[in-house]
Amino acid sequence: MGESLELTRIKEALAREMDARASERAGRIRAERDLRASLMCTSALRSLRRAQDHASRELTPSPCIKNVNKAFVASGASTQTLPPRGANKITKWSLTATAPLICSPVGTFFSSFSRRNGTPRQPSLVPMARGVVVLHQHVSGQALEGLLEFSHVWIIFMFHANTNLAHGAANYLTGRMEQTTAKAKVRVPRLNGERRGVFATRSPHRPVPIGLSLGTIRAVDVDKGFVEVSGADLIDGTPVLDLKPYLPFCDTPPSGTKSVFTPAWVLPDASSTGREPLSPLAVTWAPGAKDRLSDQWFQRGGSRFSLYDDISELHLFIEQVLSRDIRSAHQRKQNHIMSPGASHSGWWEVILDGIAIRYDIHLGSKLVIVATSL
Amino acid sequence: MGESLELTRIKEALAREMDARASERAGRIRAERDLRASLMCTSALRSLRRAQDHASRELTPSPCIKNVNKAFVASGASTQTLPPRGANKITKWSLTATAPLICSPVGTFFSSFSRRNGTPRQPSLVPMARGVVVLHQHVSGQALEGLLEFSHVWIIFMFHANTNLAHGAANYLTGRMEQTTAKAKVRVPRLNGERRGVFATRSPHRPVPIGLSLGTIRAVDVDKGFVEVSGADLIDGTPVLDLKPYLPFCDTPPSGTKSVFTPAWVLPDASSTGREPLSPLAVTWAPGAKDRLSDQWFQRGGSRFSLYDDISELHLFIEQVLSRDIRSAHQRKQNHIMSPGASHSGWWEVILDGIAIRYDIHLGSKLVIVATSL
Repeated sequence: MGESLELTRIKEALAREMDARASERAGRIRAERDLRASLMCTSALRSLRRAQDHASRELTPSPCIKNVNKAFVASGASTQTLPPRGANKITKWSLTATAPLICSPVGTFFSSFSRRNGTPRQPSLVPMARGVVVLHQHVSGQALEGLLEFSHVWIIFMFHANTNLAHGAANYLTGRMEQTTAKAKVRVPRLNGERRGVFATRSPHRPVPIGLSLGTIRAVDVDKGFVEVSGADLIDGTPVLDLKPYLPFCDTPPSGTKSVFTPAWVLPDASSTGREPLSPLAVTWAPGAKDRLSDQWFQRGGSRFSLYDDISELHLFIEQVLSRDIRSAHQRKQNHIMSPGASHSGWWEVILDGIAIRYDIHLGSKLVIVATSL
Repeated sequence: MGESLELTRIKEALAREMDARASERAGRIRAERDLRASLMCTSALRSLRRAQDHASRELTPSPCIKNVNKAFVASGASTQTLPPRGANKITKWSLTATAPLICSPVGTFFSSFSRRNGTPRQPSLVPMARGVVVLHQHVSGQALEGLLEFSHVWIIFMFHANTNLAHGAANYLTGRMEQTTAKAKVRVPRLNGERRGVFATRSPHRPVPIGLSLGTIRAVDVDKGFVEVSGADLIDGTPVLDLKPYLPFCDTPPSGTKSVFTPAWVLPDASSTGREPLSPLAVTWAPGAKDRLSDQWFQRGGSRFSLYDDISELHLFIEQVLSRDIRSAHQRKQNHIMSPGASHSGWWEVILDGIAIRYDIHLGSKLVIVATSL
C-alpha cells in the first residue's frame, strides 16, 4: 500500500517536471524568434549592400546563351572551350546569388491548429481542418474578387514557426546574407531516421522557408478581405505571401501521362491510390471526455469563438487529426508523460481550436482522448 | 508602278520604326530593373526599421483566440463586444503587415524561353519546353539527393521580369515597405479585357511577385547541383526560391471529391477535360524556313549550345509553342509589322532557345513560320 502511494507521487512529480520543461522550451522558441526579428533589422543595411553588388552584376537581362557564358566566365572557367548549353554537358557551375527577394506578407492565417504539434504533415489529410486567410490592411479585398468561382486555392506562406530562423539571422549580422542554416539533407519521418536532400522533401526547414498548401475554398468575403478554407495545414498566425487559384490543367500532370511517380518511402505500403499511407489509429473518447469538451466549448462562447459552427463538427475535426499518429519521431522515442489514471502508458497533449486535448495510445493502434481543457 | 514602290518604302520604314521602338522598350525595362535593385538597397534600413516595429508586435506566438482578439484590439474595435472567431462573423479587420520575408534565391533557371513574349501562359502546355535549375554556390547539390525518385517538381520562383518592380522600389525609398503597386484587379486574357481579383488569377503582377510552376523531372545531378525539367513556363534567368517534390496525395484534391471546379472563363469551351481551352493553330513552315533554322542551329554549335539534343526536337518545341496564340491582347489589337513578302498580313517575332523566329498568322487559325535568325 505504501509503495503504491509513493509510485503515484513520483508519477505526479514527473508530470510536473515535463510540464515545466515544455514551458521552458516554449520560452526559448519565443526568444529565438524575437532575436531573429531583431538581428534581421540591425544588420539589414550591411547585407543589402552586398546584395546590391550582386544585383548590378546579375539583374541585367540577357539572352540565355549569354547568361550561361557569363556564368562560366565568372566561375573562372577557361574561355578557350566555350561552355555547352545542354544540362547533360554542364561540367562545373559557380553561380553566385542574385538579388534577394524582400516582401511583406499579404495576410495572416488564423487556424484551428494552434501549434506545430498536431498539425498534419501534409494538407488535405484532415478535411475538417479550417482556417481563415485575413488580408492585411495594405491589400485590397477586391484582390479576392472571382476567387469563389474556384473550388481550391494554393496558399504560399512563410514557415514562421521554424526555430532555426534565429540561427539564420546571425548570417545577416555578419553580412553573409545568402548563407543558409538549413541542412542540405534532412531526416525523413517515414524512413526511420534516414536522410534525403531537402528539395526531395516537404520539410519546413528549407533554404528559403516558403510553404505550399492546397485548401478547399469555403467562403470568400471581398468587402471584409478574407478567405475561409478547409484542408490546409498551416498553423495559427502564419504569414501568407500569396494566394493562387488551383488550375487542374496546369497544376496536375496531364492525365495522359502515365509516368507520375513518387518514391517508395513516400508510399511504403506500395499502394497506388496516392493516399496518405500511415495506417490510421482507432480514435475513441474516454467516458465523460466528450461532454467535458462540449461544456468547455460552450463556456468559451461556442461557435462565436470557434472555427466550427457546432460541437459535432469540432468532435469530427479532433478525431480526424488524432486518427493519424501526430507524434514526432522524437516524441515516440522519449518517455511520454505518465498519467496515474492510464492503465499502462500515459498521455500526450495537442492544442486544437484553442483547446488542449490529452490522449493516450494503447498497443500502438488505439487512441483514447482522455481529457480536455481550455 | 511608282505608287507600289512608294508603298514598299513606307512599309520598310514602318518596320524600322517598330524595331527601334522595341529596342527602346527593352532599354527602359532594363533601366527600371536596375533602378529597382538600386533603390531597394539604399532604402532598406529605413523600411526594415519599420518592419522591426511590426515584428516585435506581431511575431510573438500566441494561441489563435488571442491573436484574433489582439487584431481586434489593434484595430480599435470595441472591447465590450468580444470579437467572434468564425470567419462568417468577422465584421471588421485591420491587420497590419507582419515582419517581411528576406531571402536569397537558391538557384537560377536557364530556359528555352528567352523572353516573356512566347512563354506559355501556364506550365505543361508545352511539354517540349526545357530548362535547367542551377543551384547557387551557397546551396549544396546534396539538397537534390532523392529528387530523381519523383516524376514532377514544384518550382517556386520570382517574377523578376515584371516591369512594375521599379515602381514598387519607390515605396521602399519612402519607407512604405508594405505598399504594393500590384493592382487589386487585373485584366484576364480570356475575358476580352474584363477584370478579376489578382488572387483569382495567375497573373505575374501580384502583391508578392512569386510564381509556381510544375515541371517534369528529366535529370538531377547532385554533384554539379542542377535539375533539368520540361514543361515549366519560366523564362531565362529567373531566380528560383524553392523546389518541392510533387506529392499527388496532397497536391491534388482527393479523388473522391467531385467538387473540383474552375470558372467558365478559364474553360470557355465548357469542356470538362481540364485541358487548355484556347483552340490550337495549325503550324506550318514556309519553304526553306526549316532548313535555314537547321543551318543556324548547327552553325551556333548544335546541341552543345542548345537544350535540345537534335534539330527535330527543336522543331517540335517551336511548333508546340506557336500552336497556341502567344500574342498578348495588346499585340493582337495593334497593327503588327508589315512584311512586304506576306500575302496579306505580316509577321510577329518570338525568341526561342536563343533563336529569333518570325511568323505570320493567316485567317486567324493558320500559322506559318516565315524566317529565323540567331
